[in-house]
Amino acid sequence: MTQPDFSAALPWQLSERARKLTSSAIREILKITERPEVISFAGGLPAPATFPVEQMRVAAERILREDASAALQYSATEGYLPLREWIARRYSSGGAQIRASQVLITTGSQQALDLLGKVLICPGSPVLVETPTYLGALQSFSMYEPRYVQVPTDDDGLIVSALTPELTAGARLLYAQPNFQNPTGRRLPLARRKALAELAQHAAFPVIEDDPYGALDYAGEPLPTMLSMAPERIVHLGSFSKVLAPGLRIGYIIAPEALQFKLVQAKQATDLHTPSFTQRIVHEVVKDGFLDTHVPAIRALYRDQCAAMLAALERYMPAGVSWNRPEGGMFVWVSLPGSIDSMALLEEAVAHNVAFVPGGPFYASEAQASTLRLSFVTVPPAQIDDGVARLAKLIQARL
Amino acid sequence: MTQPDFSAALPWQLSERARKLTSSAIREILKITERPEVISFAGGLPAPATFPVEQMRVAAERILREDASAALQYSATEGYLPLREWIARRYSSGGAQIRASQVLITTGSQQALDLLGKVLICPGSPVLVETPTYLGALQSFSMYEPRYVQVPTDDDGLIVSALTPELTAGARLLYAQPNFQNPTGRRLPLARRKALAELAQHAAFPVIEDDPYGALDYAGEPLPTMLSMAPERIVHLGSFSKVLAPGLRIGYIIAPEALQFKLVQAKQATDLHTPSFTQRIVHEVVKDGFLDTHVPAIRALYRDQCAAMLAALERYMPAGVSWNRPEGGMFVWVSLPGSIDSMALLEEAVAHNVAFVPGGPFYASEAQASTLRLSFVTVPPAQIDDGVARLAKLIQARL
Repeated sequence: MTQPDFSAALPWQLSERARKLTSSAIREILKITERPEVISFAGGLPAPATFPVEQMRVAAERILREDASAALQYSATEGYLPLREWIARRYSSGGAQIRASQVLITTGSQQALDLLGKVLICPGSPVLVETPTYLGALQSFSMYEPRYVQVPTDDDGLIVSALTPELTAGARLLYAQPNFQNPTGRRLPLARRKALAELAQHAAFPVIEDDPYGALDYAGEPLPTMLSMAPERIVHLGSFSKVLAPGLRIGYIIAPEALQFKLVQAKQATDLHTPSFTQRIVHEVVKDGFLDTHVPAIRALYRDQCAAMLAALERYMPAGVSWNRPEGGMFVWVSLPGSIDSMALLEEAVAHNVAFVPGGPFYASEAQASTLRLSFVTVPPAQIDDGVARLAKLIQARL
Repeated sequence: MTQPDFSAALPWQLSERARKLTSSAIREILKITERPEVISFAGGLPAPATFPVEQMRVAAERILREDASAALQYSATEGYLPLREWIARRYSSGGAQIRASQVLITTGSQQALDLLGKVLICPGSPVLVETPTYLGALQSFSMYEPRYVQVPTDDDGLIVSALTPELTAGARLLYAQPNFQNPTGRRLPLARRKALAELAQHAAFPVIEDDPYGALDYAGEPLPTMLSMAPERIVHLGSFSKVLAPGLRIGYIIAPEALQFKLVQAKQATDLHTPSFTQRIVHEVVKDGFLDTHVPAIRALYRDQCAAMLAALERYMPAGVSWNRPEGGMFVWVSLPGSIDSMALLEEAVAHNVAFVPGGPFYASEAQASTLRLSFVTVPPAQIDDGVARLAKLIQARL
């Protein structure tokens, strides 16, 4: 599935990190699945029906009428202060006090990962990740050439007791998605959160709590963040991509000021600041409580589509195939009988107009080739049923 | 002028590159000069009066009415295709054919510098820069820990004949701003452009032609880009920050496809893509020829303010102070008698409510402390006169 490396034709020498770069499997698949006849469970794209278009139109109009000079000018690297204050207040309601000075606005959460890599990772530094972990984090961190150390997981996510001094020796960071992890959809239980926050209190490395999906728990009963348990030792990443719209590219890092100081300098060198205009649109839309009514609507939609997918899996999948039952988020993680390679299955599936993401690229090493990720958020229930049925047939044929 | 390094208090180990980071002098000065009573020649901020607010309002409204699902969704890392095609056409009119596949949209030109550093620079790699050079480029490249090699310059900019095999040995890139360079305002003459493009044809490194100010030549008689002379060997950076508005953060890289391939992968790991919405706003505003009437209006404004500053310098500055007469752009470069340190002068000037940027930080090494940069674009002519008079008095007192 990988493209040839055209850069071999260049008359110039590339950096070591660039020579190691390969194109992401997801990226190549997304290109294939742009054909309208493909039922795609591949993308992690939020459902466009949930984008608050009218609210954004009103916000954009108001900002350009009342505040255009500032909204279109260069601005502070840290981000738009009222938005940073709003975020700090939102996280302060749950326990610990968060200050606006701890909040840095980023060009999507992906940039937060890049900045953390820049500021924390040296070539060869150990970096602790879940097994499997978010592919985009591997892509960002890999630019800084770490040595990945995989932390064992089970159906409840990261096994905190596995973080022995031997495993964590010299680590520059631990990266985890405790809520409805991409790709597995797993949620870290309260007891493990407490144990990991406690470990963070004494660790020589920060625990990165990447939380793009936290608001999407179907029951509307979120577990407390680790940030609230150890606010000076957890680096928390958030995003408006899943609760408003990803195309605005607004995310944020909450971190102790002493780390923020370096992250701001790194961001200044990276893109000066996130667009002033889009930051203001997000603030204008969320400032008066819009998310309190909007997020439950997204949750309800995804809960129903998740239920449709779980029902279809139950209905069609042959014995030997297993999957989890997510309590939130956008993904179901499927394990096939060990003899089936999901990358080979994908090539066949695309020929039958159904797509998913093979699990292999989500492992930092020792990939389990018989896993795959299904997303249910952009596909209507009738098509979910149809797509899962096709996929099940192809799997059955390989058994 | 530098802040203390608060990160020493962290219980975590930072990367080598982060430990070397210091806060930019310009950044600290911009904070000081936010006081309204300060006449600031420090900022490189475009005049807000030139922002096409009404056009952007119409564009934003139309995009959210007709194309909201795509404008608010994740999108291709390469950028919005119609905007890439528009840029390719614009650069094709001058001679060489540029393809949309050679254009990558970036989150401002600053991100272009970061991506080039990522893809081309290894720790210790020689990187060729002008003497002095753009401070923001030094900040971006320094994250990848190069060894800077300063190329000699004169009043016409980079001296191409100084690029001997000895000086350029092992270089990973040459970085230059041929049009109205930041900080010196110098323009590279046609003969030198031809010589540098010719050198690029055979060099083992790309020549980076960073061109944020090219449209701002006061006579409206632009010199041809080096891109047009050697389209497969020049990497050209452009931006909408100076001709529309910087707060949208839309820039671009034009490069051979084989390099673009790596830059796209690096950008994917850095921020996935530049916001879909702001890319569409820029395209909507520029697509029907808006810049053809808008840019001449910006030029005329800056030409008049530049003339006001040159007249004030002539009127007030004591003998021994020299400066250039820019043919475009946003900056005048001033040389003081050698005994005066412009950083010390700045501290005194700010106390007298006038600000500028000391020249030192623009040198990769061996800084000339008796230089300074003046920007005239955000200050009305009467205040320009007043501010230069204050500054001249302080300089006079130090002679």
